[in-house]
Formats: sequence, structure tokens, C-alpha cells
Amino acid sequence: MATRENTQIRLASRPKGVVTLDNFAMAKEPVASITAGQVLVKNLFMSVDPYMRGRMNDVKSYVPPFQIGKVLQAGVVGEVVESKNPKFAEGDVVSGMLGWETYSISDGKGLQKVIVGKAPLSYHLGILGMPGMTAYVGLVGIGKAQPGESVFVSAASGAVGSIVGQLAKALGCHVAGCASTDEKIALMKSEFGYDAGFNYKTSKSIPESIKEVCPKGIDVDFENVGGQIFEAALWNMNNFGRIALCGMIANYNDEKLQPGPRGMASIIGKRLTIRGFIVGDEPALCREYVEKATRWLESGELKYRETVANGIMKAPQAFIDLLNGKNVGKQIVKIAES
Amino acid sequence: MATRENTQIRLASRPKGVVTLDNFAMAKEPVASITAGQVLVKNLFMSVDPYMRGRMNDVKSYVPPFQIGKVLQAGVVGEVVESKNPKFAEGDVVSGMLGWETYSISDGKGLQKVIVGKAPLSYHLGILGMPGMTAYVGLVGIGKAQPGESVFVSAASGAVGSIVGQLAKALGCHVAGCASTDEKIALMKSEFGYDAGFNYKTSKSIPESIKEVCPKGIDVDFENVGGQIFEAALWNMNNFGRIALCGMIANYNDEKLQPGPRGMASIIGKRLTIRGFIVGDEPALCREYVEKATRWLESGELKYRETVANGIMKAPQAFIDLLNGKNVGKQIVKIAES
Repeated sequence: MATRENTQIRLASRPKGVVTLDNFAMAKEPVASITAGQVLVKNLFMSVDPYMRGRMNDVKSYVPPFQIGKVLQAGVVGEVVESKNPKFAEGDVVSGMLGWETYSISDGKGLQKVIVGKAPLSYHLGILGMPGMTAYVGLVGIGKAQPGESVFVSAASGAVGSIVGQLAKALGCHVAGCASTDEKIALMKSEFGYDAGFNYKTSKSIPESIKEVCPKGIDVDFENVGGQIFEAALWNMNNFGRIALCGMIANYNDEKLQPGPRGMASIIGKRLTIRGFIVGDEPALCREYVEKATRWLESGELKYRETVANGIMKAPQAFIDLLNGKNVGKQIVKIAES
Repeated sequence: MATRENTQIRLASRPKGVVTLDNFAMAKEPVASITAGQVLVKNLFMSVDPYMRGRMNDVKSYVPPFQIGKVLQAGVVGEVVESKNPKFAEGDVVSGMLGWETYSISDGKGLQKVIVGKAPLSYHLGILGMPGMTAYVGLVGIGKAQPGESVFVSAASGAVGSIVGQLAKALGCHVAGCASTDEKIALMKSEFGYDAGFNYKTSKSIPESIKEVCPKGIDVDFENVGGQIFEAALWNMNNFGRIALCGMIANYNDEKLQPGPRGMASIIGKRLTIRGFIVGDEPALCREYVEKATRWLESGELKYRETVANGIMKAPQAFIDLLNGKNVGKQIVKIAES
């Protein structure tokens, strides 16, 4: 068999503030031989996600930081092209945490077989993968959204927000959100289930804009952004409201710790609950969701949008675009044809 | 019957920042005759509490603001001296939200009969009243403290904190806290169940001091203070920790909204829950607590301290002292002998 070449994107340097292309380096090397227990995966699609920004800093978190000079990690869907692991056979399509690279070697841990034919393969990085599960766990498990309640979603047109809107609508909630362009707002309403939305970049007062789109106040805030949007949501919360803290992308580029929202004493008076969560803590809810979502996609009840960058070399720019809010729906990088 | 004279403390003006004696005015007037359904209560003890500071501002909250020129309200224990309400008889001892005054007239709503003889009457404003219930609801209901966990309490020697320490110890927790003088720290350890404590006014680094008194991190933060103590507690939280948000006294004098703690993104990574609560939302837990606490006080398992100011005229200064951390244990004002 001809030696396969692996193209990798590695972390060249840690960003100081804003991420730039200089923080990445490309490298090529021959694919190593696999040993007992391992599989070789030809990567087809990879995901870029906001949480990766945190891993570029040298800070201990729930996932370890990326290492300088080493290949970056990402959620990947790929095809097993060689297997010395009895759980996987050549031709299996799998998803898991692999590399920003054209081939990955895995010991099979954390690798899951993907059912082929029910939905496009890249969906397992989005609506049927981590972002979809995150939407469901945050809205149902953490936010405990009930029919008739008002749900507010920041980054409402993004990978997670585009699913939260549809799930909230299906639950019988009033659902509103904000995003960074008028085009995204239009899409939120036409495709992602939102009753109302506003452009936070052109809003004269984010607290007032939230009041307009959630005239009865907010019962569940699905918080992806942090910063002043989080503060404005906090000010609009109803008594006994829940804030599902999913992300704080507004703070990810900051080198210094930023202060929290003003007015936190209202958490007491309004008896609010703020809860941070990570989708991996809720495997049962995730399984429940994937079963439901696969059916909803087939029936058309659930809609889904992707922004696809072509080729592993485009991954760094796709990630930077994501951090700048240029994507609509889930940002995917297509690495190869299956 | 001779006309009774009522001495009242009224709100003269809203404080701008720090509360001063000028914000209060004394007034004397004859006690009005009661009508059908009403009772006349001779007030014996009243409570001053940090939440009253919020009611001095003209801001809508879960309780309405105090009104300028009107008598201030407080938790009171008193004796029914006249009754035209079938639920209460002359001689009954009652507790409820009445006035900063020597006599109050009530329609009986929210008034509860107090069992006489099991504990000093003033205890129904403290360990058997709102502060005790608050300690129990926050630690058990909101904080869900488990044996072996680490509990941190700000304002640990205060009305609520002095009870939280003892309850946490009885639950089998490691319990630590901070207070504003070395005398209070000594008392916390000798009387209120605390394993460790530090003086936040002399600490060189509050985050480091918390690390010393909670070397395994914090599982439950019982937050009474807010500001930089809250921030330092947040930084020391363990994964899946709970923050029971009971008070933010550090911010009550501020005229502008203060920013929240720095580093709130850690709420996600550590999967923290922050929950604000008001004791009145949990009547079942409160009843459960009062039964238990009455037994624990009789058996000596629960200890209790009061700082008592004598006479209704001393109520404004007692309240100001409380806001400045001068009290040890529950701050009470004795109005009259029973």
C-alpha cells in the first residue's frame, strides 16, 4: 500500500487577544502504521467551535489546553480505512474528537459509529452532534422551559441557537433572540422557529431591544455570548427565571478576566437560577435527543443550516470567521469526499 | 382606658449611599382605636436586617420600598393587648411584619402565634425566625450540602451565618467563613461550629485566604456579602458547586449598579449553579426547620447569640451598626417588657 500523507493544522503560537492566521501552522507527514487496538480514520468533515478559543490559552479547564507545535483537536466525522480494533471495521463511519488533519489514528475511545443514510454525515457534527445535544440539554435539562414561557437566545442563528429556536417553538414557548446581522435575524424567523429577534450590533439599547422581543420578560435565557448581552438578559428576567449558561464567547478573546453583569443582586429578589453546563455530563438526555432529532429531521419538523469551508487548509480562517460571527448555522470544514 | 401613646420611627429621607441618622425621624401619636378584624399589638422586640437597606431606596423589588414620612416596617414579636379578630386573644404573643413603633395595629394577616416558654421571645426574630429559616433553606434547600462537602459562608458571624455554621457542622460538612474582626472569627470557631475562618478586613488576599480555610475548594458557598468576597468564593468553587445567593450587603449602599464578579465563564467549565432565594418561598422547609431547631436549642446542640439595643429610639443606630458589621449574632431592638 502506498504511504498516505497526513496534512495537519498545528498550534503555532497562543493568541494574544484576537486569533490570527499566524497562530496556526500547516505540516505534512507520512501517516504512521497503526498498532493493535488502533484504527486509522480518513477524516471527512470537522467542526470548528467557539470553545476551542479557550483551549488556545494555557489555562486549565474542563478540557486541557492545546499544545504549541501539536495538531489541534476537533470533532470529526470520518471513515475507518484500517482497523486493528475489533469494535470497528474498515468502511465504518465514525465521529469523535480527532485532529485538524486529513487522517487520524485513534485507540477507539470516545469514537462512535454513525448511522449512515438517515442524514448527511456532517450533521453528526451539528444538529445530531454536540451543538444539537447542547441545545436540548440547555433548554430542557438546565433551562426547564415550559409551554407558554418566554425563551431568549443570544447568538440565535449560530450552531446551537438555530436549534434552540426550533426546539423552544416545538415546546410551545415564545422564543426570541439576537444575532449580528439583519440577514441572520431574517433567517432566524423564517427557518429557525423564532418569533422575534434583533440585531445587537445596530441596537441602540440592548436591554430595550430585549424588552421589545420578549414583552413578557424572559423565563429561560439560553446564554451563548456573555458580556453586555448577558447583562441585558439578566435585567429582563422574570421571577423564578433560569439562565442556562452555555458559552461566553464575548469574553474568550480577553486576556484579563472581565467583570460579570451589573445588577446581580436581582438574582436574589427575582429568585433566579444561573447554571453552567457541559453537554457531556448528560449522556441520557443526549441519547433521547438524537433519537427525537433524527425523526424530526426526516419529517421536516427540524431544519438545519451549515456554512461549509472547503479543505483542511481553510480550517483556521473558518474558525476565525466563526469567532467574528460570520457563519450562519453550523460552521463545518469539509476535509475529503467519502 | 387611658389613651395609649405610640412612638414611631419613620423614614425622613432616602439615603444617598451610606445610611445616616438624618434619614430617620421620631414621631409620637395616640394609638388609634381598632375596628372589626383588627388586633392591637404591644411590640416587645423588633429585628433590624440588611434587606431593609434595599427598601430604603425607591426601587421595586420583591417587597415594596419604604415610604417617606411613613413608619418603617420590621419583623416584630409582641403581645396582643386588644383583639377584635377571632383568631387572636388578648395575651397572645405573636410575630409578624409590623412597624418600628411601640404599638402596631394589624388585620392579622401574616401574624403568627408564638409558642411561649420554649425559648426567649426574641429568638422568634432570629434563630427560630427569618434568619434561622434562611440558614436552613439556603444550606439544605438551595445549597444541597452533603456530608463531607466544604461549605463557605460570608458574614459568618452574623444572624444567618452563625446558624449556617452550626447546621453545616451538624450535617457533617467542613465549614469555614469570614467576618470583619478577629473577635468574630474566634466566636465563629468557639460557638458557631466553624472549622476555620479569616478576617477579610486584614486579609492580604481574600482568594488566598479562602484557599487556606477551604483547602479542598468550596462545594457550597452561602453568599451573604457579594462584591470581592463573592468573587473570591467563585474562584475557589469546585466542579458542580452550588452558590446559594442570600444577600449582597456589599452592594446595598451603592447608588450605581456594581459589576458582578470577574471570571464568570468558570461557571460553565465548573458547571456551577448560582441560585437566589427568599425564605418565604419555602414554607414547608421553614416549618421543618422550626420544629428541629426548637429541639436543638433545648438540647444545647444549637447555640445562639444576640446583640440587643434597648429602646425603640435606638433602632436607627442599631440598623446603621448592623450595616457596618458591628453586631455579633442577631441584631435585636428591645422595645418593651412583656
